[in-house]
Amino acid sequence: MNRVAVFGLGLIGGSLARDLAEAGVDVAGYDRDPAVSAAALEAGVLSRSLAGPADIGDSDVVVLAVPVRAALELLRVVGPAAHAAELITDVGSTKRSIVARSAELGLADRFVGGHPMAGHQDAGWNASRRGLFRGARIYLTPTDATAPAALDGAETLWRRVGAFPEHIDATIHDSRVARTSHLPQVLSTLLARLLAADAVPTDLAPGGRDMTRLAASDPDLWTDIALDNADELLNAMAALGAELAALRGAIARGDAAATRRIFVEARDWMRPSV
Amino acid sequence: MNRVAVFGLGLIGGSLARDLAEAGVDVAGYDRDPAVSAAALEAGVLSRSLAGPADIGDSDVVVLAVPVRAALELLRVVGPAAHAAELITDVGSTKRSIVARSAELGLADRFVGGHPMAGHQDAGWNASRRGLFRGARIYLTPTDATAPAALDGAETLWRRVGAFPEHIDATIHDSRVARTSHLPQVLSTLLARLLAADAVPTDLAPGGRDMTRLAASDPDLWTDIALDNADELLNAMAALGAELAALRGAIARGDAAATRRIFVEARDWMRPSV
Repeated sequence: MNRVAVFGLGLIGGSLARDLAEAGVDVAGYDRDPAVSAAALEAGVLSRSLAGPADIGDSDVVVLAVPVRAALELLRVVGPAAHAAELITDVGSTKRSIVARSAELGLADRFVGGHPMAGHQDAGWNASRRGLFRGARIYLTPTDATAPAALDGAETLWRRVGAFPEHIDATIHDSRVARTSHLPQVLSTLLARLLAADAVPTDLAPGGRDMTRLAASDPDLWTDIALDNADELLNAMAALGAELAALRGAIARGDAAATRRIFVEARDWMRPSV
Repeated sequence: MNRVAVFGLGLIGGSLARDLAEAGVDVAGYDRDPAVSAAALEAGVLSRSLAGPADIGDSDVVVLAVPVRAALELLRVVGPAAHAAELITDVGSTKRSIVARSAELGLADRFVGGHPMAGHQDAGWNASRRGLFRGARIYLTPTDATAPAALDGAETLWRRVGAFPEHIDATIHDSRVARTSHLPQVLSTLLARLLAADAVPTDLAPGGRDMTRLAASDPDLWTDIALDNADELLNAMAALGAELAALRGAIARGDAAATRRIFVEARDWMRPSV
């Protein structure tokens, strides 16, 4: 891994570029906002600003760090241009669609899906930072068609910035993150909407503050994720709706034992030792 | 305010006792667990361990720091015993029921409901700490019947530990906290239950971690709160259910504009300046 091209210099792409550059890797980059590319050059993070999606140059690794639906389109342009790259990867929060697209485009051997379990509600280059991935899990979704060199490349890339690769099937990934990541985002968003509708001030107590923090996240990113992982997210939302109905029933009946059991079972998952 | 009696030396009562003692106030205390009273004496927080709920002694302020339904019962015993106290107050997360109970017991002049907007998912004396209330809002719910000396006493008590009193009608309080505090707790609990049902490991990414933190809270405390504020909490849960249904509809239709609008409206509440 000598030369990495990063498309999209937002929170994730920008942070990855910063850490790779710091680790001595040559990083070229592109952002649809020329001011961002200029800032990344100026900061010494990029060795070169790419002219556009087809301008891969001699990069041996290409990283797509744009919202998931944009990545599906970007891969159509980047794929043919990256004939010399040993690895094309991404950082999106859903994996089935991009893995399928890579196969359609004849890139199954060199594409490895990636999803770092790191982030922040702030978005964009200005939110990017050194060390964002240190100690974080990075899901990689190789398939039977993945070339060993591509998978090695993806592992090396992420270990270089302090992340721990974990292999997972793309379908299992999308199902799991629907509950561990996408549903939490949705609940934070819906809770914030209720508070907004009541014109509640945002200076909440600590619990409410934690629960609404994610609601500040980038709406475009999350619209893409919600629609791309629609089936799994709808399942998770339906399951949450059923839990909500069960607790409403217990409270409405004044059923202290059933209400308590619901709180206890959740607490026991959080604190198996209690 | 010379001598304060605190009933219940858990997270809130224990933290209040610590700060008051540090501020030079004489603090007597009671906890149903004798080991906790002993620890608080040993730590020099209490000047005296009270024998039971009727053992008010010459305290001029009495604080009930037990779960909300327990406080309703405790007040029956403490009220008659506290004939010399100028203030009886509590720290519960619901206020209508305890204010009504104080009136029934002929304590309307000397009872002032209180609810500090501070806390933590850890419970009990071992979780109590200095400075928990510093900079926090403390809701006080005086009524037309409240004696000025009692209200002054409540304000003095909480300012002494760094909190900022804010007066609010008990009914408005219960409606507001149903959405800002009780619903967030419920959502965290229900999300944790879904993850527990899937046997998901608890080492979530930062977003999921924040959203499940509250699920570790004390089930007894929250069962009390949920049942005591049932009407308002059920309203809030119904409103959340409607938001959930609207987003499910938008995603199921593949309606990017409607989905995005939902994320945008929540984000705009969090970040009016964006």
